[in-house]
Parts: sequence; structure tokens; C-alpha cells
Amino acid sequence: MIEPNAVCRVAVIGAGTIGSSWAAHFLGRGMHVTVSDPGPGASEKLKQFIEDAWPAVQRLGGLDDADPSNWRFCHDSTEAVGDAQFVQESGPERLDEKIAIYKAVEPAMGDDVVLATSTSGLLISQLQADCRRPGRFVVGHPVNPPHIIPLVEVVAGTRTDPQVTDWAMAFYKFLGKHPVHIRKEVPGHLLNRLQVALLREAIHAVDADIASVADVDATLTAGLGLRWALMGAHLTFHLAGGPGGARHQFEHLGPAVEQWWADLGDPHLTPDVCAKVVEGIDRAVAHTNFDQLVAKRDEMLVALLEMIGEQGGHPGDPAQSVSS
Amino acid sequence: MIEPNAVCRVAVIGAGTIGSSWAAHFLGRGMHVTVSDPGPGASEKLKQFIEDAWPAVQRLGGLDDADPSNWRFCHDSTEAVGDAQFVQESGPERLDEKIAIYKAVEPAMGDDVVLATSTSGLLISQLQADCRRPGRFVVGHPVNPPHIIPLVEVVAGTRTDPQVTDWAMAFYKFLGKHPVHIRKEVPGHLLNRLQVALLREAIHAVDADIASVADVDATLTAGLGLRWALMGAHLTFHLAGGPGGARHQFEHLGPAVEQWWADLGDPHLTPDVCAKVVEGIDRAVAHTNFDQLVAKRDEMLVALLEMIGEQGGHPGDPAQSVSS
Repeated sequence: MIEPNAVCRVAVIGAGTIGSSWAAHFLGRGMHVTVSDPGPGASEKLKQFIEDAWPAVQRLGGLDDADPSNWRFCHDSTEAVGDAQFVQESGPERLDEKIAIYKAVEPAMGDDVVLATSTSGLLISQLQADCRRPGRFVVGHPVNPPHIIPLVEVVAGTRTDPQVTDWAMAFYKFLGKHPVHIRKEVPGHLLNRLQVALLREAIHAVDADIASVADVDATLTAGLGLRWALMGAHLTFHLAGGPGGARHQFEHLGPAVEQWWADLGDPHLTPDVCAKVVEGIDRAVAHTNFDQLVAKRDEMLVALLEMIGEQGGHPGDPAQSVSS
Repeated sequence: MIEPNAVCRVAVIGAGTIGSSWAAHFLGRGMHVTVSDPGPGASEKLKQFIEDAWPAVQRLGGLDDADPSNWRFCHDSTEAVGDAQFVQESGPERLDEKIAIYKAVEPAMGDDVVLATSTSGLLISQLQADCRRPGRFVVGHPVNPPHIIPLVEVVAGTRTDPQVTDWAMAFYKFLGKHPVHIRKEVPGHLLNRLQVALLREAIHAVDADIASVADVDATLTAGLGLRWALMGAHLTFHLAGGPGGARHQFEHLGPAVEQWWADLGDPHLTPDVCAKVVEGIDRAVAHTNFDQLVAKRDEMLVALLEMIGEQGGHPGDPAQSVSS
């Protein structure tokens, strides 16, 4: 296999929200990018996306000599992968569609080329089952938008070559991402399991009239989310316990936590529940519009990442240790 | 009742992590603060806490003429509340202990004085049941550390006077906090329900060897938490759906969300599970120490709030609307 830091040509299959953002990130790191997408107007949309994303890409570690026009649109995915040293697949989130994509592109891929899928939660073992060389298929699940948010979940399937997992971890690091190796293959990997665990109670709170959508979100943006942007759930729990840390917290608050767990809501996504949440969101954002929200989100995410960088990383990062 | 913005003397009962931080916040807003705590060395610890917290208090809206020495320690809680126009109780998180505190202090409180409890999740209806004037007892649950994090959950009990709830909301706003009115009394209010919903899966991930403590936390600090610091769970879900928003997301991702919900872990806080998590946390922070982590947390929280302030608020805030 090629050295991860020698890769200079990557293919992006699928140019929706995630694929376009990946393309912008790869371009920022000086790669030549081939892109395929069967959707109408995909090439024009991608052009616009890269143009809009470019200032953020540059602020977040894009190379000085990176060229935002260094991409080529291919109507055929086999053409896109033909010359590529790495493939990032961000097609529709359906098992059958992804399997069909792999069946089409694999014969056109170089034998040692790794394909990572952006799947939000499908199992790579199922996706790779019918591949000719399943060992080079791996999950590389980013967080929306991937040209800004550092995390990538790397997950191996039962037939993924362990060397390929290591290669993907190294490649994403080389790209300036923060890859984490999810060591067991479970539906939703890890990030989406954490996300929907919280979302379940957030939906329940709205459905049960405990709080409005805006107030549920404020509980995060003016409270929990501020801490989790800096520390994560375990370290937050540890620090909340005072000098006794998590050990003390479990003794002190453990019984309450178990009681709260038992009382959490168990909503289902019936049409009524979905409609109530959608209505609440529409009310919460009635003063603005979608494009403006996305632009402001991206601007503030970049500012947040720059702040963390200026501080030398998160509180728990090894780089923050006392120099002695 | 006194006008919320006319309050200038407040009592703080309990000077642990939360009570001390409240005292620092009240001082920053120009209040005269009386504090009681039966613990050994409580007064000295409080003095140190206020000194350490003062730079953050000043950066986050403390008044220019606020005086960090404008407090008096009382060994007796009845003395602390005697002259106060508002009482913030942050005693031990136990029903019986809080009820005993209210029994002791209520006769010494002015008739119209509101008492807000910092309880993390006890029901105010149970806490107020035996009070002489239960109408003025309400929940004012802050987020650690209260002198920095804006959110306060306000919850009324069955016997809380609705005017008192409104008064508490107005008073916390006057103090520069972000109060949210939790409209139904449920164990854990809202914030801790959201927190433990996620924490359950975070503990499961470590217990089931899906990921290390450091990697679970990175999933937040390099991923989910960045978005939730700015947008909350509902707005994040809405924006992830592309222009179709949450409506499209529910159609597109709804079945997957239901599958992930069904697969989430259901750990219990057995000694083994707690030990495994504590061990993982100890390993993740072995390079640093508790005081340093707390100091860095507070420094970065202040920087994060300043960044949000410079940006004019969160993406979903009404202040962010298009001026037209």
C-alpha cells in the first residue's frame, strides 16, 4: 500500500452535503480530487459549495498552495476511482445502494487502494460481504460538516485487514482530522449512538411539554454543550465530583443517576411526534432562514476551533500537561 | 415582593463547589452576600474560591464597582438569611437534609423572600411540602460552575406561587444568567436527564470495550460537543437534514434512529462498571492533575463564552436574524 502521507489523488463518490464537504477538505490539503454523483446539477452545486467553504478550509489548516479548482467531475464513478489512491464514498445511506456502488467501482480501483465509507451507522461487515477484496473496505465516518469538524470514526468489519484500519487512521491524521478507532462494530458506530441517546430525551421533553424546542436547545448551548465542547462526558462527570472525581461522583450521585435513567422518556417517531418536533423547530427558527443558519454555524464552528487551537487544545489533552 | 432588579442582599446556604460559585457570581453583580456552611474551614475555602474565580467573574459581565470582599460568613444559617432579600440554597443533595434546612431557616426569612434551591434533580413539591409558606420555594438549578455557565433551570412545585416562578426567572435574567422554565416537574429536571441519557451510552461504550474513555470524550470534544455548544440537539438535527431540515431528516433517518435507540446499552452502576470507568478516566488524565484541569476548564469556558458574545450570540438566537 502507498504510504498514507504520499497520497495525492483521491476520489469522492457522492457529492451531497457530506461528499462535497469532504472534497473541499481534500482540496485544502493539496489533493487532486475526482468526484462523481448522478444527481442533476451536481457539478455546479459542488463548485458553489467549494467556493463557499474555501475561507473556512484555509483558516483550519488548508495548505498555502492548495488549489480549490484542483478537481474534476466524472459522470461515471468508475472513471472517478480509476486513478485514485484513496476513495471516500458518501453515497446514499442504504445498504443496497452502497453495495451496488462497490460492485460497480471495485473492478476499476487499484488493488491496494483503500475505500472508506462515510456511512452514519451501517455495518461495514455487511457492506463489504460481496466485495472481491473486502480487506480494504473500512468505515471513515465524518461529522457534518467534514471540512470543519475534526472527528472521523474509523471502524473495521470482520473482513477488514487490520493494516487497512491502521492505514486509514494514519491517513486521516495526515489530513488534519481527529480519527478515533471504534473497536467494536455496532449500529450507529459511537457518535450517532451518543447523539440519539440524548436526542431521544430531547424529543421526549418536547413531546411531553417539559420544555420548548428553544429551551431544550438552550439547555445545551447555555449549559451542557459548552462543557462537552471542551471536555466530553466522562471528564465533565469527573470534574463535577470535586477533588474526589468520578469515584466520589458515582458514590454520591450514582443512585440518583440510576433513578433518572429509569425515568427517561421512550418516544417513538410516530407522525404526531415528528410533527410536534418539526413545528417546534420551525417556531424556534422562524426569524431566520436555513442558509443563514448554516453560514452562521460554520463561521462559529471555525471560531470555536480556532479558540481551542489558541488555548493549546482541550483541557484533557496530553499537550496540556504540566511541564516539569 | 421586592422587584427582582432591586435585590442587593442575598444569602447563600451551603458553600461547597456550587454555593461558593454562586457567591462569586452574586458578588460580581454587586450584591452583598451572607454565607453559611457547617463544614470545617468553609470560610477560608470560600475566600480562596472567590479570589480564584474573580478574574472570570469580571470578564463575564461583573460590574466595575463590584467588591469581592462584600460577603460575611455566618456559622448559623438563620443568621445568614435574616437580612436577605433572596436565598440560594446549595446544601447536600438529599431530601431529608434540605427539608431540615428549610425548617430551620424559614422562620428567620422575611415573609416575601424567595428561596431557590440548586438541587440537581429533587422534586421541589417534596421539598416544599412541610414549609409554612411553600409558595416562595422554587428550583433554581445552575450548571457547574455557576459563576461561568449561564444556564439556570427554574422549576415550580405544585405549591409554588406562579408569581414566584416569574420572579425567579426575572431575577436570574437580571443577574445575567440564562434561565429556562422547565414546565413539568420531573426527576433530574431537564439538563440532568439529557446529560445522563448521553452518559448512559458513554458508560456503555467503555464497559463494552467499544472505545476508550479518551476516545468517547473525543467524540464529543472533536465532534458532537462542538455543534451542541452552538446549536443544541434539535437545531443540529434540523441542519443535518439539508434544506429539507428536520422534516426530511425524520423521513430519511427516522428508521435508523429507531434501530439505534433499540440497540443502545443499558448499563447499571455496579461496582465493576464504576471501577472500569474510573480506571479509564484515571488513565485519560494521568498526565495532569485535578486543579489544573479545573483551571483550564474555567479559562476555556470563559474564552468560549466570549467568542459566542463576540459573534452576537448562537446561530439560532433571535438576535442573529437578518436585518431587513
